[in-house]
Amino acid sequence: MIAAPYLLYLGDCRDPLSIKTARGVAQWRPDACIGERRLSARAESLGLAPMSYAEAVAQGARTVLIGVANRGGVMTDQDRSEMLEALEAGLDVASGLHQRLRDQPALVEAARRNGRTLHDVRAAPDGLQVGDGVRRAGFRVLTVGTDCSVGKMYTSLAIDRELRLRGLRSDFRATGQTGIMIAGSGVPVDNVISDFVSGSVEALSPARHDGGIDVIEGQGSLFHPSYAAVSLGLLHGAQPDVLVLCHEAERAHMRGLPGRPVPGLAETLERNLEAARVTNPDVSAAGVSINTSRLSEIDARRVCRAVEDDLGLPVEDSWRTGVSRITDRIVQCLQDLQPMASAGR
Amino acid sequence: MIAAPYLLYLGDCRDPLSIKTARGVAQWRPDACIGERRLSARAESLGLAPMSYAEAVAQGARTVLIGVANRGGVMTDQDRSEMLEALEAGLDVASGLHQRLRDQPALVEAARRNGRTLHDVRAAPDGLQVGDGVRRAGFRVLTVGTDCSVGKMYTSLAIDRELRLRGLRSDFRATGQTGIMIAGSGVPVDNVISDFVSGSVEALSPARHDGGIDVIEGQGSLFHPSYAAVSLGLLHGAQPDVLVLCHEAERAHMRGLPGRPVPGLAETLERNLEAARVTNPDVSAAGVSINTSRLSEIDARRVCRAVEDDLGLPVEDSWRTGVSRITDRIVQCLQDLQPMASAGR
Repeated sequence: MIAAPYLLYLGDCRDPLSIKTARGVAQWRPDACIGERRLSARAESLGLAPMSYAEAVAQGARTVLIGVANRGGVMTDQDRSEMLEALEAGLDVASGLHQRLRDQPALVEAARRNGRTLHDVRAAPDGLQVGDGVRRAGFRVLTVGTDCSVGKMYTSLAIDRELRLRGLRSDFRATGQTGIMIAGSGVPVDNVISDFVSGSVEALSPARHDGGIDVIEGQGSLFHPSYAAVSLGLLHGAQPDVLVLCHEAERAHMRGLPGRPVPGLAETLERNLEAARVTNPDVSAAGVSINTSRLSEIDARRVCRAVEDDLGLPVEDSWRTGVSRITDRIVQCLQDLQPMASAGR
Repeated sequence: MIAAPYLLYLGDCRDPLSIKTARGVAQWRPDACIGERRLSARAESLGLAPMSYAEAVAQGARTVLIGVANRGGVMTDQDRSEMLEALEAGLDVASGLHQRLRDQPALVEAARRNGRTLHDVRAAPDGLQVGDGVRRAGFRVLTVGTDCSVGKMYTSLAIDRELRLRGLRSDFRATGQTGIMIAGSGVPVDNVISDFVSGSVEALSPARHDGGIDVIEGQGSLFHPSYAAVSLGLLHGAQPDVLVLCHEAERAHMRGLPGRPVPGLAETLERNLEAARVTNPDVSAAGVSINTSRLSEIDARRVCRAVEDDLGLPVEDSWRTGVSRITDRIVQCLQDLQPMASAGR
């Protein structure tokens, strides 16, 4: 567990995309972000209070998050000396870079000396087991997609928030680096040894008996030739009761693969349901979340309505219109399956 | 590439199952196995000529294979001193144990001093890439299964041998530790980081332009909740032109999962074909290999005939009856797809 509150380290990034992870944390955990640290006035900012490590500690910060991406995913000498300063000031460090904190002796030594913790959020945890597919208690929602980067994390977080707003117990279960920084914990499934993918998700979302809901962040697509192994192991390990299909309207081709068309929504949903039945024969679909940011308001509504007519499921753009109707359906499924547990809250 | 010929190290194993890997190598690469090394007269034997490391080197051996499994997959002190002796005598060492040779300083030092190579066949190679699913030249056969351990390696090797006997160019592409020791190279796909599974198989079976055939060893099952991620990544990366479905008759439940029934043959085949079309829309099924070792001769024939009638494909037990009819179908598919390349040999 990454200890909150956080100071967000933005380094000297000059490209809005490079601070995507930090922006996600600021958006979904605003209460947990007490400030930002930039290395120059020209660097990208999230508009949070600028502060030094000592100031952040004085205001209660527990961890500095390196929520930036740079060429090659390695730390610069300047990044490293900043993190040494943060450790000396009393902060833990969490990093989403490829280059691991634990592989840098100076940081390891400074963390040890100061009694601080280093979190490499891209690194798979130790001690993972092979999955067994045995049915476990609890109610699980999983987002799946026609492609990578179609809004599965965003949709999962939006559903989790909507469930909480309705007074239900819900936990977002993160499977990617940004999600892990937002949740404060999780498993980066695409970095797990292939034999342990489903087992790692069984561990991420264990049996729960409190009537609450796990909303599990999906990854990739069963139709993406680069990443389908991750998607299928995640689907089997999640043992979802309910799937929410995510899609981006007007995407020209599968991410990173020009010329390869995005699969159809009905086929994607059917294939995911088929595969999900291996570990949960009672799985159903609760809705479709379409990222319509490339479309006008009118075209977006038209596209959503067409898909809704075609699939007979609520279709929403989680960013534009929220996920209330998809959440209605999820709650209905929960009540059908757990009439006692979900009543009266 | 593991250099042949081999000396097979059998240690002090007292259980026939524990030398399964060594037995596979002796069975499929008899010409490459010039002797065996046991630590006591009561240890399991493969009936090969007993010899010391010096004797093996004198007869041309290049590598000692640790083709045994023991509790925990670690080397005993005695195993280690044996391997030091082998390295000093001038042999490379290849190990299928979980505990890696490269993590044992005494072995690393002895290998360096003697200019020898250490092969950890369970370790994924460095430098793996994400797959891209782009169609590549060549003709590929992949074995898939209803479950783990139903004979995919055996069937792949039998098909490869049959193709060679017919004068065709064929290469067995290994994806598990026993297969890798038999082939002398390969990728242990279940030890690959999940993001790189399909890419590792693209690298294992690259484009080929010689009209020859890659017979790729399948792993696991799309229906096994522990290992389906491996199976799907392998299926997408293999980009097979032809699938051969493997099954064991009378298996009571999925391997390691009492109570979980083995999926039906028709459903397994259909699901594998569907998924395979993501990277090769022209994929077809060439036959079914059923391990009928639990059945009488008469029952075996009855079962094979029933499946043949049901699926309309040649059905054989690769051990009992060979794979000639499945191979006929494979060659027919090859000729349909590559009429020029496969003619006249």
